[in-house]
Amino acid sequence: MLEIKKLLSSFDPATAVISGADAAWRRLSDLFGCFSDLTAYKAAMALDDALVYSVASSAPADGEGDMHYGAGLIMPGRIGREYFMTKGHLHVWREAAELYIGLSGGGVILMEDESTGESRLAPLQPNHTVYVPGHTAHRTINTGSTPLTYLGIYPAKAGLDYSAIAKKNFRCVVIERNGKPVMVERRSISK
Amino acid sequence: MLEIKKLLSSFDPATAVISGADAAWRRLSDLFGCFSDLTAYKAAMALDDALVYSVASSAPADGEGDMHYGAGLIMPGRIGREYFMTKGHLHVWREAAELYIGLSGGGVILMEDESTGESRLAPLQPNHTVYVPGHTAHRTINTGSTPLTYLGIYPAKAGLDYSAIAKKNFRCVVIERNGKPVMVERRSISK
Repeated sequence: MLEIKKLLSSFDPATAVISGADAAWRRLSDLFGCFSDLTAYKAAMALDDALVYSVASSAPADGEGDMHYGAGLIMPGRIGREYFMTKGHLHVWREAAELYIGLSGGGVILMEDESTGESRLAPLQPNHTVYVPGHTAHRTINTGSTPLTYLGIYPAKAGLDYSAIAKKNFRCVVIERNGKPVMVERRSISK
Repeated sequence: MLEIKKLLSSFDPATAVISGADAAWRRLSDLFGCFSDLTAYKAAMALDDALVYSVASSAPADGEGDMHYGAGLIMPGRIGREYFMTKGHLHVWREAAELYIGLSGGGVILMEDESTGESRLAPLQPNHTVYVPGHTAHRTINTGSTPLTYLGIYPAKAGLDYSAIAKKNFRCVVIERNGKPVMVERRSISK
């Protein structure tokens, strides 16, 4: 059996810090090309290359039946009408699903079926789960006014594929309209 | 993609109830043969066939890369010096691991390597995780004075094997000694 300390971890629901794991921070500059409003993006960058989100992960083992888990924090904020969000990813092993568990704050997960382009918006909040099936690009978005934190659990062999999303982006964007998040087609909004 | 309502669920950290899922309750009578002190077990049964624990689960999909999650609640209590606990199980697909996340209360997970019999005791508490590797029998135990609740996430194809444990039980027991839980070999304690 693995040594006991490899089997144990803890996380802080307020900060998404995992004990003994490094958190990687993504700044506005890391999200070049993600936001639809390039003018607003450049204006925000001119002020500050702000911290947008952090991710940390725990990877106890890497066999066929193993799982890893990650913890994420997304800062509150917007670029134009679009909320702060993660880059989003597919899994290298396309069949791999991911179970998200909300810890604090409120947001949504944008999902896009890789084959059909069909998009779904799922609410993410404390003690609620969102199940992201395989073959589904997904991006987490903070639609609230406080940090959004969450866990994501996935098969150890899932792997992260950012490149497919980086090339074509998500078909839909989530924007603030009358104080509420709405999902609209990217091509329907003016730049 | 699956319809959105199949992708969403919520759980109550106080009761381990999952929205839209039935909880199965296990009573003392269901745990016949689990506790080491048969005299104390019979005395407790004569008073009341008490509720010991409940389990509920969410199973959105069943493919190769899918995961299910369960929520459990164990009542506080003891039979003799042994704490209230689950029956314990192995996974039918032995490689399958399970990630436990503590929600409320305090307890431990007893793990036993199926091949070597090596035993480990891991603390389970809110915002802490315990990783149960494949090929490892595991039993959750409430060592506190309030209900213990937790989530367990596992590969969809893990499956539950109770029979191996029912036949030989765990090699170790967790008993109260000077107000604290300790793990001792079953054969070392008098009945």
